[in-house]
Amino acid sequence: MTTQPAYSHDSIRAVIWQGDHLRLLDQRRLPADEIWLDCHSADEVAAAIRDLVVRGAPAIGIAAAWGVVIAAQRDPGHLDAALATLRAARPTAVNLMWALDRMKAAIVRGADAAALAREAQAIQDEDLAANRHMGELGAALLGRGVGVLTHCNTGSLATAGFGTALGVIRAGVSAGRIARVFAGETRPWLQGARLTIWELLRDRIPATLVADSAAAHLMKSGDVQWVIVGADRIAANGDVANKIGTYQLAIGARHHGVRFMVVAPSSTVDMSTASGADIEIELRSPDELLAYAGQRTVAAGAQAWNPVFDVTPASLIDAIVTERGVVERPDAGRMAALFGTAR
Amino acid sequence: MTTQPAYSHDSIRAVIWQGDHLRLLDQRRLPADEIWLDCHSADEVAAAIRDLVVRGAPAIGIAAAWGVVIAAQRDPGHLDAALATLRAARPTAVNLMWALDRMKAAIVRGADAAALAREAQAIQDEDLAANRHMGELGAALLGRGVGVLTHCNTGSLATAGFGTALGVIRAGVSAGRIARVFAGETRPWLQGARLTIWELLRDRIPATLVADSAAAHLMKSGDVQWVIVGADRIAANGDVANKIGTYQLAIGARHHGVRFMVVAPSSTVDMSTASGADIEIELRSPDELLAYAGQRTVAAGAQAWNPVFDVTPASLIDAIVTERGVVERPDAGRMAALFGTAR
Repeated sequence: MTTQPAYSHDSIRAVIWQGDHLRLLDQRRLPADEIWLDCHSADEVAAAIRDLVVRGAPAIGIAAAWGVVIAAQRDPGHLDAALATLRAARPTAVNLMWALDRMKAAIVRGADAAALAREAQAIQDEDLAANRHMGELGAALLGRGVGVLTHCNTGSLATAGFGTALGVIRAGVSAGRIARVFAGETRPWLQGARLTIWELLRDRIPATLVADSAAAHLMKSGDVQWVIVGADRIAANGDVANKIGTYQLAIGARHHGVRFMVVAPSSTVDMSTASGADIEIELRSPDELLAYAGQRTVAAGAQAWNPVFDVTPASLIDAIVTERGVVERPDAGRMAALFGTAR
Repeated sequence: MTTQPAYSHDSIRAVIWQGDHLRLLDQRRLPADEIWLDCHSADEVAAAIRDLVVRGAPAIGIAAAWGVVIAAQRDPGHLDAALATLRAARPTAVNLMWALDRMKAAIVRGADAAALAREAQAIQDEDLAANRHMGELGAALLGRGVGVLTHCNTGSLATAGFGTALGVIRAGVSAGRIARVFAGETRPWLQGARLTIWELLRDRIPATLVADSAAAHLMKSGDVQWVIVGADRIAANGDVANKIGTYQLAIGARHHGVRFMVVAPSSTVDMSTASGADIEIELRSPDELLAYAGQRTVAAGAQAWNPVFDVTPASLIDAIVTERGVVERPDAGRMAALFGTAR
C-alpha cells in the first residue's frame, strides 16, 4: 500500500551534496540538455553562481553554504578567503549573504568540517520545509478557480525543492485552487521559458508561456487574478528586489485590479536595508541582450543596458508570504511586526 | 556644390519597385544578412507579407499595392482574386486594407497596369512625405534634451522611408531635441533588437537596447521623458492597436509621468472601427515563442499564447501624430474633428 504524498508536484532537485563535492544541474543548458557539474572547490562553486549554473536566491545560498563545507574539508586554512569569494559571486541576492553569515557564525563557534556540513544540510532542509509551508500559506490566499501569472523561475531549480512562488503554484494546483498557470519568458535569460515551463511539464502542471510584453494584455483579458513572484531581497519597508520585469508586472497588476504576491523565505528579508532605494541592482553584460546561445542577434556596435533586477515598491504588493507568516499590504510597521527591527 | 539634405538620418529603403517585379529586403534575416527577395506575383507578395519578409503597417500597404500592379501586368483577368489574397495576408494592419481599397478604386475607375503603377507609386511617395511631415510635428512636441523609448521597428524598414515613430526620433535627433534613444527588444520577433538598432546604427544615431521587461525600471530611472510608438490601426475613439507590449509601455508611462506619443499616417486611422474592442488581434504561431533565433528554447510539449498586437486605450495616450495634424489627449470628439466621421 502506498501513501499519497502531500505534494505530487515536486520531482526536481538541482543542488545535491555528494559527501565531498557539490553536484549542480547546469541551468544554462536546460531544457535542451540535463548536464550535471561537479564542484570540488569554493572557487568552483563561486564560479557556478556567477555564471548562472545555479541561480535563484535560495539555491545560491544553499550552494554557497556547501562551498564553505568543501573549503573546510580541503583547505581549512583559507576559509575567510573562500567566504569572501563566495560572497562576491552575485551582489543582489541577500540569501547568499545570509547563508554565508550563518556558516561564518558556525566557524566562529569552532565548527569543524563535519559540523559545517550539518549546518549546510540544515540550511537546505529548512529551505525545503519553508517552501512547503509557504505553499500552504500562499495558496490559502488565492480563492478558487483563479488564473496566475509567474515570472522567472522560482521552483525546485531555484531552491532546495518545491519552490517559493512556484511552490505556491504547486500547492494551489494540488488544492484545486488554480485553474490556469501562465509563465513569462523572462528576458534576457529566459528562465521562465527554459526552466519554469520545463519544471511544470515534468510535474504535469499545464502552463502557458507568454512574452514578457504580453502580460498587461493577458491581465486585461481577465484570465489572471494573481501575479505570484519570488524575491532576491526584501527591504525593511516591504520593497522587493526581484528579477527584471517584476516591477512592470506589479504596475500592470495594480492597473487591472490583479493581485500581487511575493513569496520568499525570511532569509530574503533584509531588515538592515531600509528601502528599495538602498538595494544594489546587478548589471550584467550587454552580451546577454545582444546574442542568444552564442548566436549574435543584434548588429555589431550596438549598446545595451542590462539590469537583471528591479525594485517593486511595497505599495504595489498585496501580500509578502514567508515561512514565518504573511504580511498583507506591507509597510515598515507590518514588516517590523513580523521580522523585528534591523539585525 | 552639394546641398545639405533636410535629413541626413535616412539611408534605408526596404521596398523597391523594379518596373516588373517587387524587390524586398528580407527582414527575417537582418541584421546578420542583407538578402533581397524578388516577388513576381501577387501570391508571392502576399506570402512575403504573411511570412514577415516585409512588415510594418505602412510598408505592408505599399508592398500590397505593388502586388496589385504585378497582377495587373501579368494576370489582369484575376485582379479580384489577387486583391483577396493580399487582403488576407495579415488581419490587424488597416493600412493593408486601405492601400488595397485605393487600388481597387483605381481598378473600378478603369485604370490599366500603367495607371495602377502610378497609383502604387503615389501611395509610396505620399507615405514618405507623410513621414517627414510627422517627423516635424512629433519632434515639435518633445521639448529639449529628452530621452525617448521606442518599441518594435517603425523606421525606414517599416515604411516607404524615414519612418513613423522612428521618423519623429530621426527628426528629433536632427533638431537636437533628443539626448538619449532607447529601443525595446520587442519579443517574440525582436524587431527592436534586430531592426531598429540596425537602422539607427546605419544612420549613426546612438541608441541603447533594453529588454521589454526593463522599460518600467528605465522609466523610474528618469532617463526617459517620452515613449514614441507606431500603430497598426487607430479606432475612431483614439484607441490604438500596435505591437504586443505597447499597452504595457503605456501603463508604465502613465505610472511614471512619462508622456506617450503614437505616430502613424492617417491611413492607419479607421473611423469605421468604433473602439479598440472591435479590432481583431492577430494570434501567430506559438513557435515564435518556443524558439529564439531559430533555436528551440522551450521544452517539448510546451504551450504558448502569442498575440502579436494589443490595444492601448486612448486614455493612456498623450498625442496621436498624423500627417494631417496632431490629436492631443485623443477621444472620439477630437478624432472626429480631424478625421471626420465613419467613411
